[in-house]
Amino acid sequence: MRKISIETGVTRHAEGSCLIKVGDTHVLCTATLEERVPPFIKGTGLGWVTAEYGMLPRATNTRMRREAAAGKQGGRTVEIQRLIGRALRAGVDRVALGERQITIDCDVLQADGGTRCASITGGWVALRLAVDKLMKAGSVISDPLTDHVAAVSCGIYAGQPVLDLDYPEDSEAGVDGNFILTGAGHLVEVQMSAEGSVFSRTQMNTLLDLAEKGVGELVAAQKAATR
Amino acid sequence: MRKISIETGVTRHAEGSCLIKVGDTHVLCTATLEERVPPFIKGTGLGWVTAEYGMLPRATNTRMRREAAAGKQGGRTVEIQRLIGRALRAGVDRVALGERQITIDCDVLQADGGTRCASITGGWVALRLAVDKLMKAGSVISDPLTDHVAAVSCGIYAGQPVLDLDYPEDSEAGVDGNFILTGAGHLVEVQMSAEGSVFSRTQMNTLLDLAEKGVGELVAAQKAATR
Amino acid sequence: MRKISIETGVTRHAEGSCLIKVGDTHVLCTATLEERVPPFIKGTGLGWVTAEYGMLPRATNTRMRREAAAGKQGGRTVEIQRLIGRALRAGVDRVALGERQITIDCDVLQADGGTRCASITGGWVALRLAVDKLMKAGSVISDPLTDHVAAVSCGIYAGQPVLDLDYPEDSEAGVDGNFILTGAGHLVEVQMSAEGSVFSRTQMNTLLDLAEKGVGELVAAQKAATR
Amino acid sequence: MRKISIETGVTRHAEGSCLIKVGDTHVLCTATLEERVPPFIKGTGLGWVTAEYGMLPRATNTRMRREAAAGKQGGRTVEIQRLIGRALRAGVDRVALGERQITIDCDVLQADGGTRCASITGGWVALRLAVDKLMKAGSVISDPLTDHVAAVSCGIYAGQPVLDLDYPEDSEAGVDGNFILTGAGHLVEVQMSAEGSVFSRTQMNTLLDLAEKGVGELVAAQKAATR
Amino acid sequence: MRKISIETGVTRHAEGSCLIKVGDTHVLCTATLEERVPPFIKGTGLGWVTAEYGMLPRATNTRMRREAAAGKQGGRTVEIQRLIGRALRAGVDRVALGERQITIDCDVLQADGGTRCASITGGWVALRLAVDKLMKAGSVISDPLTDHVAAVSCGIYAGQPVLDLDYPEDSEAGVDGNFILTGAGHLVEVQMSAEGSVFSRTQMNTLLDLAEKGVGELVAAQKAATR
Amino acid sequence: MRKISIETGVTRHAEGSCLIKVGDTHVLCTATLEERVPPFIKGTGLGWVTAEYGMLPRATNTRMRREAAAGKQGGRTVEIQRLIGRALRAGVDRVALGERQITIDCDVLQADGGTRCASITGGWVALRLAVDKLMKAGSVISDPLTDHVAAVSCGIYAGQPVLDLDYPEDSEAGVDGNFILTGAGHLVEVQMSAEGSVFSRTQMNTLLDLAEKGVGELVAAQKAATR
Repeated sequence: MRKISIETGVTRHAEGSCLIKVGDTHVLCTATLEERVPPFIKGTGLGWVTAEYGMLPRATNTRMRREAAAGKQGGRTVEIQRLIGRALRAGVDRVALGERQITIDCDVLQADGGTRCASITGGWVALRLAVDKLMKAGSVISDPLTDHVAAVSCGIYAGQPVLDLDYPEDSEAGVDGNFILTGAGHLVEVQMSAEGSVFSRTQMNTLLDLAEKGVGELVAAQKAATR
Repeated sequence: MRKISIETGVTRHAEGSCLIKVGDTHVLCTATLEERVPPFIKGTGLGWVTAEYGMLPRATNTRMRREAAAGKQGGRTVEIQRLIGRALRAGVDRVALGERQITIDCDVLQADGGTRCASITGGWVALRLAVDKLMKAGSVISDPLTDHVAAVSCGIYAGQPVLDLDYPEDSEAGVDGNFILTGAGHLVEVQMSAEGSVFSRTQMNTLLDLAEKGVGELVAAQKAATR
Repeated sequence: MRKISIETGVTRHAEGSCLIKVGDTHVLCTATLEERVPPFIKGTGLGWVTAEYGMLPRATNTRMRREAAAGKQGGRTVEIQRLIGRALRAGVDRVALGERQITIDCDVLQADGGTRCASITGGWVALRLAVDKLMKAGSVISDPLTDHVAAVSCGIYAGQPVLDLDYPEDSEAGVDGNFILTGAGHLVEVQMSAEGSVFSRTQMNTLLDLAEKGVGELVAAQKAATR
Repeated sequence: MRKISIETGVTRHAEGSCLIKVGDTHVLCTATLEERVPPFIKGTGLGWVTAEYGMLPRATNTRMRREAAAGKQGGRTVEIQRLIGRALRAGVDRVALGERQITIDCDVLQADGGTRCASITGGWVALRLAVDKLMKAGSVISDPLTDHVAAVSCGIYAGQPVLDLDYPEDSEAGVDGNFILTGAGHLVEVQMSAEGSVFSRTQMNTLLDLAEKGVGELVAAQKAATR
Repeated sequence: MRKISIETGVTRHAEGSCLIKVGDTHVLCTATLEERVPPFIKGTGLGWVTAEYGMLPRATNTRMRREAAAGKQGGRTVEIQRLIGRALRAGVDRVALGERQITIDCDVLQADGGTRCASITGGWVALRLAVDKLMKAGSVISDPLTDHVAAVSCGIYAGQPVLDLDYPEDSEAGVDGNFILTGAGHLVEVQMSAEGSVFSRTQMNTLLDLAEKGVGELVAAQKAATR
Repeated sequence: MRKISIETGVTRHAEGSCLIKVGDTHVLCTATLEERVPPFIKGTGLGWVTAEYGMLPRATNTRMRREAAAGKQGGRTVEIQRLIGRALRAGVDRVALGERQITIDCDVLQADGGTRCASITGGWVALRLAVDKLMKAGSVISDPLTDHVAAVSCGIYAGQPVLDLDYPEDSEAGVDGNFILTGAGHLVEVQMSAEGSVFSRTQMNTLLDLAEKGVGELVAAQKAATR
C-alpha cells in the first residue's frame, strides 16, 4: 500500500473538501450541498448523492486533451463518475438525508494509477464533512451516512498479486480489479477484468483478501481525517 | 435461465451476424471486418476487436430518446460498449488475427434485462462467423479465437440468488452482477454492485456458482449456432 | 415490384409495430403513443404524428458510422424523417386524434434501396395498429386515419422506367422519384430529381403511372397485414 | 410573379456574387472557387458544385435562434442546402469543370417565402460569374455550365393555383411545390407536398404549367444580370 | 478615417436596422425587441441589451467555414459578441428600459478590418431606432439611451500610429487597440494589445487621441442617420 | 495588493509547474512542451506558446456546471485563455524557441477574483521553468524568453481606485481593468471596461499607475520563485 495522506478543508467555498494523496496520485474532492434534487426523485422525500470526475490535462505523463475543449466527456470519465456516485450512495441512508442533493467533484491534479479508487476514498471524506455541517445545523436528525466507503485496486502484475497498483503496474497488469468496501468490511462493488487474458476464482479470492487489508488502512486514514 | 435462441446469417451485408434472443431480450449482432487498425496499433502487427452498442428507441417499455437525435451516446451506452469490446478481446489472439479490425455492432431490438450479457454472447457468435470467413479465405493461418466468451447476469432478488435476471427482477435486485467467462470456465470480467446496499463474499460466491452454470448453457448455444 | 412482406406485432412494448420487407430492404417500424403534444400545438385540441428514422451501422454493404457516436444525425437522415412524418400526417384527421402524439420510429435493419418508401408504408401499419388500440380503448370516437398512405420509388434506369428501384438501380438511375399516395390514389407528396441530368413531363407522367400501380400493391399488403 | 431584381458583384472577395430580390425575399449569393475537391471524387478528374444556406436571425418576422449559437444546422436548413447543390449540379458538366470545387453560399437577409427558390436562381448567377472568371483565365476550355437553372414555388392557396407564393400564402397553402427547371424548360427537380391534405394529377399539371411560365421570367432575369 | 455610410430601415421585419459601411467593411445590424428578459434578471425591473455577431462565410478573402456547420461559434466570435453587448449596455439606463430585452444582431456581409467596431457603431443605430419605436408607442417614458456609443480601432502600423485600420494594416500592426467611447467622449472600453511586441504609455495616449477624433466622426454619422 | 505565493514543481509530470496564490485565488499552472507546432506555422521555423484555462466546478462560491459535462467551453473561458496565450507570447522570441510548442494549462482550484491575472503571472513561471529545461538540454541556444510577463487587475470600487480586486470588489466595481506588463514595465495588453458606466482618461491613468506598482511586486515574486 502506498503512502496515504488526506488533508481536509482545502477550499474555502465547498461544504466539504479534501486533497487525498495515495502515493503520487493526488485528487481534490469537494462536496456541494444543494436543497434540491433531480427531477426523477422530486417529491419522494429521498436525497441524492452524485459524483463528477475530471483530470487536469497535464495530470498525466503525456498531456491529454481537455475534455471541455473536446466538447464531451470521454467514455472512461463517464464510467468512472458513475462508479463513484454508485459507491458513495451505498453508504447513504437516503431517507435520513431528506430531499437534498450532494455532488462530489473529484478532480485529479496528478495521476499515478488508482485515481478512481482515490476519488471514492477522498470523496467519502468530503461527503462526511458536508453531512457533518448539515447535522450541526440541525437540518438532519439521524446521521445519513451508514458507514465508511473506500476503494482500492489490486491486480496480478508479473505473475504476483499486488495491492494498490501504481500506473506502471496498472498498465502492465494482466488482471486488475477495483474493490469497494464499507468500514465494516462488506462489499459494495467489485470489478475485475482481464485485458487479453483470463483469471481464476482462486486469483479472485487472493485479490479480495488483499483488498480487505488495503481498505482497512484507507478507512483508518478517513477516520483520522474526519475525527 | 431463460430460453436462448441464436439465429445466424440474419443480414446479407455483414461478414458475420446473428439475432440472439434470451427470453424477451433480442439483440441483432453484426461483425464488420476491415483491413485497417486504429492509429494506436498501426504497424504493430496486432489486430483489434471493438464493439458498439445501441438500443432502438422503443426497445423498452417507455420510448427513450434516440441517442443520434440527442447528439451523444449516454453514459450507460458508452460503459456497455467498452465492456463488450474488452470481453471479446479476452478470447482473441491478436497476433494471429494480424493487422485488421473487427467491429461488433450490438443493437437491441427488444429489451427485457440482460442486454449487455446477450450482446457479448451474441457478439461472440458474429465474431466467430467473421473469423471463419477469414480462415476460409486463407487470410489467417491459425485460429485467432482462443475460446468462447459468454456472459450472464445474476443477482439477489427478494432475498434469493437468481440466474439471468429479467427486467423486473433486475430493476429491483439489491445486488446484481455481470459475469463473463470463457468456454473453459475461466473468468474474463466480474462486475458486482449493490445499489444502496452491500453484499458478502459468500453471496458473491453463490452468484459465481450460478453464473458458471448459466454460461455453460450459453456456450452450448453458441456451439450449436456456429457448428 | 419486389416481394413485399409485412409482419405485425414484432415487439412487445410498442403500441403498434411491424417488420416490413420490400425485397432485401427490411425496416422495423414502431408506434409510440403519448398523451402529450409538442409545445407548438398545446391547447389547440389537435394531435400530432411525427417520425424518426435510423439505419443500423451495418445495414449497408459498407459499415456506416453510427450517428449517435458521430454526435449528430446526418442531413440525409433528417430529410427522410421529416418526409415520413409529413407523409403520414396527410392521412390523419388531427382533430379526431385529439391532443396526443404518435411517434413512428423506422429503423432499417438491412438496406437495399427504397428505405424511405418502405418506412412510410410500414410506418403507416404501425400507426394503424396504435390507433386501433386507441379506438378499442374508447379514447377516440371516430377513426383519426382518413386513408392508407404508402410510398414507392421509381426511376429511369438504363433508359427504361423502373418501378421500385433496388440499391444498384437507385445508385445509377439518372432520374429517380419518390411517390407517396393514399389508398384512394390521391397524391400526398412527389419528389423527383435528376442527379446531373434532366427529365421531361412525359417521363414524369410515365413514372407516376408506375407509382400508382406499385402503391396499389403496397396498400393491398397493408390491408392484409392490418385486417 | 413578384418583382425580380438581381444585382451582381455585391462583395469584393467572392469569385461570383449577387443579391437577388424576389419581392421581399432577399438572398445574398456568393460563389467560392477552390482548386481542390472533396475526398470522394479526388483523382476522378470531375469537379464538384455544392451549396450552403443560412438565414440571418432576424430575416424573419420573429427572430430565430442563430444556428451557430444553437450548435447545429436545423433539419430545414440541411434539406434546403442539399436541394440547392443538387439543383445547380444538374446544369454543370463536371468533366468540363475539371477537378475543382465551387461552393455557393446563399444567405437570406430578408425572408418572405420562396427563399430556397430564390437561392437556386441567385446561386446560379453567382456560379455563372465564377465560371466566367475561370474561362477568362483559360483554366477551363469548354463552358462547364450546360444551361440555366432556376426555381419557383407554386401552390394551391384558398382553392386557387398561385405562382410564386409569398410567406402568408405559403404558410396557409394546403399544397405547395418547388419546381426547378433549366433554361430549355427541362425539369431538374419537382417537390410537391400536401401538409395534412392531398392533391390530384390535374392540380399537379396546373402548377407545373404555372412554374414553367415563372421560370421563364427568372431565366430572363438571369440572362439580363449576367450578359 | 475611411468613408462612413449608415443606411437605416434595411429590413422590414426588425424593430430597428441599418447597414453600416466603414470603407469596405459592411455590417448589417438589426435590433429585436422582446417583452421578456433572461432568467437572471427576471423580476428585477431591469432591462437587458445583448448582442450576437456573425460573418457570412465569404465575407473574407478566403472562405471561412460556416460556424453553424462547424457546430459552434469560434472563440473570436464569442469574444466579439460579448464586447458588443457590454459596450452598448454602457449607454443604456436599464431601469428606464424596463423589463424587456433588445438583441442586436451584427452580421458582417463584407470584411476589411474593424468589423467589431463597425458592429458597435451600427448596432447603436439599430438600438436607437428600436428604442424610438418603444418611446413612440409610449411603452417607456424617459429615454433609456443615455448617450451615443461608438467604436474605432487604432494601431501602430509600420511604426506610425494609424486610425481605423483596414485588414492589411490590422494584420501587420504590432500593436492595435479598440476604443469605445460615448458621444460625450467618455471611455466605455479600451482594449490594446501587442501580438509578440510591447507598447508604451506614450503610444497608448497617441492612439487614444486618434480614437477620440475618429469616434467624433462616427457619432456625427450616427446622428445624421437617426435624426 | 493581496499576499502572493508561488510554489514551483508541484506536479511531477509537467515540464514546468507552479501553484500561484494571490490572496484566496489559487491557480495550478503547468507547461507542456511538445516537439510539434500547429499546422498554420509548420515549416516556418517559429515556435508557439498557447494556453488553456479552466475552473474546477466548486472553485467558486456556488458550484458551476462542469464545462466538459456541458459540452463546450463558455464564452468567458474562451476569452480568458486567448488572453493568456497572447500575453505570454508577447515575452517570447519565437525564432529562438524554434519549431516547438509550449501549452500552458491554468486551472483554478479556488477563485476569489483576478483568476486571469493570476493565470498569466503563474503561467509565465511554468513557461520559464519549461524553457529552462530546454536550455539545460541544449535544445535552444539563446533564451527564448525576452522578459517577464505579469498581470494585475485594478478598478474603481466605491469611488476609489483599487489595486488587485478580490471577488466582492470585482463584482461591484463600476470600472475594472486588466493590465499586463513586462518586467521592464512595458505594456503588453490593457483591457478596461465599464459595465453600465463610463470612465475618464484620468481614471485610466490612475489605474495604470497602480498596475505598474502591482506588477512590480508580481515580477519580484516570479524572480524569487524561478531563481
